[in-house]
Amino acid sequence: MRLPRIFTPRFVASAHCDLPCGVYDPAQARIEAESVKAICEKYQANTDAEFRTRALIIKEQRADLVKHHLWVLWTDYFKPAHFEKYPNLHQLFNEATKLAGGGGGAKSSTDPATADQLLAKIDEIAKIFWETKQA
Amino acid sequence: MRLPRIFTPRFVASAHCDLPCGVYDPAQARIEAESVKAICEKYQANTDAEFRTRALIIKEQRADLVKHHLWVLWTDYFKPAHFEKYPNLHQLFNEATKLAGGGGGAKSSTDPATADQLLAKIDEIAKIFWETKQA
Amino acid sequence: MRLPRIFTPRFVASAHCDLPCGVYDPAQARIEAESVKAICEKYQANTDAEFRTRALIIKEQRADLVKHHLWVLWTDYFKPAHFEKYPNLHQLFNEATKLAGGGGGAKSSTDPATADQLLAKIDEIAKIFWETKQA
Amino acid sequence: MRLPRIFTPRFVASAHCDLPCGVYDPAQARIEAESVKAICEKYQANTDAEFRTRALIIKEQRADLVKHHLWVLWTDYFKPAHFEKYPNLHQLFNEATKLAGGGGGAKSSTDPATADQLLAKIDEIAKIFWETKQA
Amino acid sequence: MRLPRIFTPRFVASAHCDLPCGVYDPAQARIEAESVKAICEKYQANTDAEFRTRALIIKEQRADLVKHHLWVLWTDYFKPAHFEKYPNLHQLFNEATKLAGGGGGAKSSTDPATADQLLAKIDEIAKIFWETKQA
Amino acid sequence: MRLPRIFTPRFVASAHCDLPCGVYDPAQARIEAESVKAICEKYQANTDAEFRTRALIIKEQRADLVKHHLWVLWTDYFKPAHFEKYPNLHQLFNEATKLAGGGGGAKSSTDPATADQLLAKIDEIAKIFWETKQA
Repeated sequence: MRLPRIFTPRFVASAHCDLPCGVYDPAQARIEAESVKAICEKYQANTDAEFRTRALIIKEQRADLVKHHLWVLWTDYFKPAHFEKYPNLHQLFNEATKLAGGGGGAKSSTDPATADQLLAKIDEIAKIFWETKQA
Repeated sequence: MRLPRIFTPRFVASAHCDLPCGVYDPAQARIEAESVKAICEKYQANTDAEFRTRALIIKEQRADLVKHHLWVLWTDYFKPAHFEKYPNLHQLFNEATKLAGGGGGAKSSTDPATADQLLAKIDEIAKIFWETKQA
Repeated sequence: MRLPRIFTPRFVASAHCDLPCGVYDPAQARIEAESVKAICEKYQANTDAEFRTRALIIKEQRADLVKHHLWVLWTDYFKPAHFEKYPNLHQLFNEATKLAGGGGGAKSSTDPATADQLLAKIDEIAKIFWETKQA
Repeated sequence: MRLPRIFTPRFVASAHCDLPCGVYDPAQARIEAESVKAICEKYQANTDAEFRTRALIIKEQRADLVKHHLWVLWTDYFKPAHFEKYPNLHQLFNEATKLAGGGGGAKSSTDPATADQLLAKIDEIAKIFWETKQA
Repeated sequence: MRLPRIFTPRFVASAHCDLPCGVYDPAQARIEAESVKAICEKYQANTDAEFRTRALIIKEQRADLVKHHLWVLWTDYFKPAHFEKYPNLHQLFNEATKLAGGGGGAKSSTDPATADQLLAKIDEIAKIFWETKQA
Repeated sequence: MRLPRIFTPRFVASAHCDLPCGVYDPAQARIEAESVKAICEKYQANTDAEFRTRALIIKEQRADLVKHHLWVLWTDYFKPAHFEKYPNLHQLFNEATKLAGGGGGAKSSTDPATADQLLAKIDEIAKIFWETKQA
């Protein structure tokens, strides 16, 4: 049986704001990216024109949220010392946000495989994020 | 050592959209509520007028997001059968969103204790949410 | 001849905000729902692909506003005493917001009949709202 | 006894969108302006610093909505023939939106009298609006 | 060789806000309108259904921004003395915002020629704007 | 006499969208940053409590727009080849968006000097942007 998050070993859930409040969590980007993937899968399985138009409208919005949550992590959470320690972190974020966007990314693609690439990039970022939280 | 989410037993992370995409997760509301609490704590610890004004501006936004994420769960995720099985679920959501709002809730209060009450309500909802996912 | 609102017997027009300001009016939800219905009618009468895509884009936005205005009434205007007096009020709001949403509601339907059902639910809510204002 | 809108002689409630859906109603601007006025009154009656900051945050938002709803009527509902018939209509809208804005209008003022002037302008616009609907 | 803006003779770049901050610039509307035109051109050159749906979604957003930036100039920047000196200024703004909107304007049209008409109107407004700045 | 933009040697004004439409312009970020600076100056010159609260509310919004416009340039306009040619471009954008944000940047500061630093960073980015457009 899978244990939902609230029963797993606790860590400080983490969002953000520009106070800054100090609460950040890559889960915010990941959840929206999983939504993008689910939309792609439903899009491929349904040829109804109205459904497909709605899927594209909503995928655009969710992918925008992926970009936003990643941008916030990149600008607001990560500090110069982090970028020194992880020299490819800038590029990782740039690739991840491009993968969420319109030029071949999750916005212009309806292929779940593109969403999978986006999810993989987010997980790379999350891995670094949690390393820095434990440092 | 705390294990971040990506290393814990996996479950389908869950957001939402009105396609519907079928992805929902109470973590979205919880993360924003933790942000509200962190803002309250920083507010109490800092008497600078500019800082406090900014704290109130941002708390208003984060509390709005709490309300939004809870409303989405209540309307979009939970189905009539759930409300039959959990007769107090409507009231629970109504109390939780009121606790995020302006009439004595997290918007009009700067007391971290109010945010704690909000977090407790969200956890009650999350517990039911995960029970229904495993049903 | 129909008399527009400003010449009818006066009542306090009612919006909302989270101050709270105390101004609420079910007309806000109803106006957006009438917009949803008008879009459905125009959609059915026009097979042009560009027009239909735009209709779906805009209907999504108006239906979102219906949900938002109803959620605000449910959380911010109605108090515990109201829910005691009107035991089906929670369910009424849940059904109304579902009727505005994506799972068979006004978002996923282009049938004006769905919008009519939504309007009928809003009128049920409005009837209770005005009863409580006169209490 | 005051009769709420849904029991008064019926007219087509009217919002808007850019399809266009053909649904417009000056009530949308008026409701937000009444909210602005209520906020000003509560502001004047309450000297608590936190309350006052929140009042200013929310008044800014409601006044933005007044401007938006008026702009929509001016651009989307009214047609060249209307502006010919009502030569001062452009100026009326310009004055009304200025009264909602920051340079001495409802945004920069916390005086309920400013909100009253705004409401009066909106009623002038509503009177013309309903005349054109009956033409 | 074309010189980008930052190397041309300097003028105070100009945006806006409702403080008011006093910073306004018709370039904000023009940039979004050029985006609308580019979208129309790409739409005409690409018959892929997904691409076209996304083009309509995004054009709707950019055209909304054109309207917003123009409304702000009309209400917030221009003063009664300007409208006296330029008696057709009200009509110019009304025509420009209608050209950005849905009734035959840039929202409902995918013809780059409509976007060109919109751009020409914006340039007429910009010419007057800069005359008033130099007065 | 200063020449406004529409009379200077023409270049393609440049915004953006995620189609992508190919229209980008650093002027969008700069205009909002100039607004931030103007707000800081007015804030310093005016000790009225209501005015100052409104200034902080609006500065928060304008600084958010600065961040957004910069993020869009960084993710959507600049391509891998650009980042190879300008190895410090990632860091430049990270510093610029941090300067717009809350941790010592334009959001938490009311010092016009902070806004000046932000403007200088934007100009560095704009210089590179225009070099790549002419390449």
